[in-house]
Amino acid sequence: MIGDEILAGKFADENAPFLVGELRALGVDLRRIAVIPDDRAEIGATVVDFSRRFDHVFTSGGVGPTHDDVTMEAIAAAFAVPVEVEPRLEKVLRDHWGQAMAPANIRLAHVPRGSELVGDDPIWPVVRFRNIHILPGVPTLFRRKFASIRELFRDRPVTERRIYCRAEEGTLAPRLEVAVAEFPACKLGSYPRFEETAYRVMITIEAADAALADACATRLRALLGDLVVDLPG
Amino acid sequence: MIGDEILAGKFADENAPFLVGELRALGVDLRRIAVIPDDRAEIGATVVDFSRRFDHVFTSGGVGPTHDDVTMEAIAAAFAVPVEVEPRLEKVLRDHWGQAMAPANIRLAHVPRGSELVGDDPIWPVVRFRNIHILPGVPTLFRRKFASIRELFRDRPVTERRIYCRAEEGTLAPRLEVAVAEFPACKLGSYPRFEETAYRVMITIEAADAALADACATRLRALLGDLVVDLPG
Repeated sequence: MIGDEILAGKFADENAPFLVGELRALGVDLRRIAVIPDDRAEIGATVVDFSRRFDHVFTSGGVGPTHDDVTMEAIAAAFAVPVEVEPRLEKVLRDHWGQAMAPANIRLAHVPRGSELVGDDPIWPVVRFRNIHILPGVPTLFRRKFASIRELFRDRPVTERRIYCRAEEGTLAPRLEVAVAEFPACKLGSYPRFEETAYRVMITIEAADAALADACATRLRALLGDLVVDLPG
Repeated sequence: MIGDEILAGKFADENAPFLVGELRALGVDLRRIAVIPDDRAEIGATVVDFSRRFDHVFTSGGVGPTHDDVTMEAIAAAFAVPVEVEPRLEKVLRDHWGQAMAPANIRLAHVPRGSELVGDDPIWPVVRFRNIHILPGVPTLFRRKFASIRELFRDRPVTERRIYCRAEEGTLAPRLEVAVAEFPACKLGSYPRFEETAYRVMITIEAADAALADACATRLRALLGDLVVDLPG
């Protein structure tokens, strides 16, 4: 998420929560979110780091025609390629504005050299440079753009089971350790809550297949005994 | 923000938006937010990086007694110090639970060696290691803990002025460039919106003092002429 406006609280960040939900629905394991300022060096360092470490990277923001829109230049500079005008995007701009196009708007067609256009939006495709998908920051546009590429990322969703407990975490900890040791392929999470009254801790069990998640949940329920709360519904 | 549960979408991240608002009200310039998994190496690398680059660092999450609470160990390991039991925190725990305390809960008193206790909470102070303030992830607790240390960070708030425009960003861009060049001590932001009908772009002007922000706003209004929208209210 690239934007001084998020860090300064001028706008709430809608794009990260949206992307969290989309990636979860697609079965994609989200590893990291960074919210950074409109600063060439910060953007460059972050995309280089993320591009190397993760399969896919999504950026939001900094792609308009004004002085604070530096994402394209920053990515290009970080990978030592020039920015150039993408002919297909330029044509979209000229068809839209005609003679009345403000010269600064040509920046909307700037991309790092070597970029591809991806997705199924017939008008304005998404710019992809290496494994970095460069999306706009305005939430309505971010959503529309992501919708045009979302099927590129569909993966196998994880199965999740939840167990709610009436005891506090300290009491559960040694029993959780047993399940963690016996089911190394499952990921267990323990989340205390202090406002709900029906339970005190929510345990989540995630696994690549349902049989494994169920086996782990059955074992953990046995370990927890009457500490388990059966929530209605 | 440390927590698989945020990245996986099990819980919405309430702490980052809360902190954005608090820091803005305090006049603190927030430079970066990272949301990372409950992973020792990730936590360690991130806190070392942030601790070196920024004046203050706040962490949220991973401080309970279960297997997925690794923040204290990760910070200690990253700075090559051991984790130890903090006597004042241990006393709070033992006074609270007495003989009935589950052994795992002693982990709630674990801190990296060299930590201090800060803030005005008489019961459970905040653990600070170097410039890293280690806060819990549960939103109600995060808010209460931050409230106990917030006055340590009060700074001089920036002044912000806003100008709303009826033209699109490409038309505004060259005039904004003039103001950016003439007022290097001001930070100008340009934010297009496509859903509001009263204006198309919001421009923000931020400066360390009100006279400078006003001077820049006056100049920019002159440059923009009748592109400025006077919003009621």
